[in-house]
Amino acid sequence: MSESKRDILKRKILGAAEKRIETQGLAALRARDVTKDAGCALGSLYNAFEDLDLLILAVNSRTLARLHASLQSASASQTSPKEKLLALALAYQDFGTENPNLWAALFDHRMQPGVPVPQWHLEEHVLLISEVIGPLSQLNPNLDDDMLASRARTVFSAVHGIVKLSLDGRFVALDPDKVKAELSEFVSQYLRGNTSEKKA
Amino acid sequence: MSESKRDILKRKILGAAEKRIETQGLAALRARDVTKDAGCALGSLYNAFEDLDLLILAVNSRTLARLHASLQSASASQTSPKEKLLALALAYQDFGTENPNLWAALFDHRMQPGVPVPQWHLEEHVLLISEVIGPLSQLNPNLDDDMLASRARTVFSAVHGIVKLSLDGRFVALDPDKVKAELSEFVSQYLRGNTSEKKA
Repeated sequence: MSESKRDILKRKILGAAEKRIETQGLAALRARDVTKDAGCALGSLYNAFEDLDLLILAVNSRTLARLHASLQSASASQTSPKEKLLALALAYQDFGTENPNLWAALFDHRMQPGVPVPQWHLEEHVLLISEVIGPLSQLNPNLDDDMLASRARTVFSAVHGIVKLSLDGRFVALDPDKVKAELSEFVSQYLRGNTSEKKA
Repeated sequence: MSESKRDILKRKILGAAEKRIETQGLAALRARDVTKDAGCALGSLYNAFEDLDLLILAVNSRTLARLHASLQSASASQTSPKEKLLALALAYQDFGTENPNLWAALFDHRMQPGVPVPQWHLEEHVLLISEVIGPLSQLNPNLDDDMLASRARTVFSAVHGIVKLSLDGRFVALDPDKVKAELSEFVSQYLRGNTSEKKA
């Protein structure tokens, strides 16, 4: 099956945008630079992706898929739910450290005012959170689905905050050499405080 | 003692910049708008603050002082170290919710490449962290000063992550109605997992 001309062009533009974000960060992304890198006319970008926001979402979608694969693999390598959650936190830190600009783009991108994030993209976020929900539900068999979803988002946000401020290297940032040890200790202490499992 | 003309002008420019950041966010801040609001020439801003970055730091410095006062007051209203830490987390969430743009500017502002954040400003961050160090050291009397400083930055970053993603209202954000309950439960569970106090 041969790839259509349009698909080839789409793939080139996506690759060029990903490379630009990876090396220079989302804030520096310009449509003109992307099409120059991809060797096509400016109009081709809008033909292929409708607008720059949807191109950025396509890049973020690839980043999310890679992040999801990293988290899945880290979780699968452990057996107990507590070990899984700890492995997820450390894999998240690794991914952010290794892909700082692509990772930051997941959180920094904003749609134009009044334009909602498309449903297909929101569902990719839910998929990511499901990795945390699995082991959390084993530790907290009494929580219903709504509570579990909130709890997973809270734990995710806390780990995100530790990784984010450390990678930003400013404000109250942790020393980068210490962040892994601190993250481990933090998550471990949080998990020691889990009491639901005793009630089950 | 009368205020010098220069001080009056400085205060006007600072107030105008604070108002602009508060209402429109840091990203929309333009020197020209600030001086127009303050009723002075563009050059006056550079006379009074050297450059726009130092003006923003002056605004951030005021925000930090207000945030610090809120945290101090929340902590002082509690007696046990665990209650103090919980009150600090909730006061932090309140402050971010009530001052979203000024609070975001604390984390979003970047100096020009190669220009370090001035020492006086870094010391204001340390002051903020000291509020967390106090009760943490009571809970962990075995930790030395370095470890305590790292631990306090980790706890701060985790709480920050929960508040930040929730206020951003996107990605894996928590439902805003649930964030206070989730933040309380998260910090409480973390504190239940604290084992150092038993060894002391």
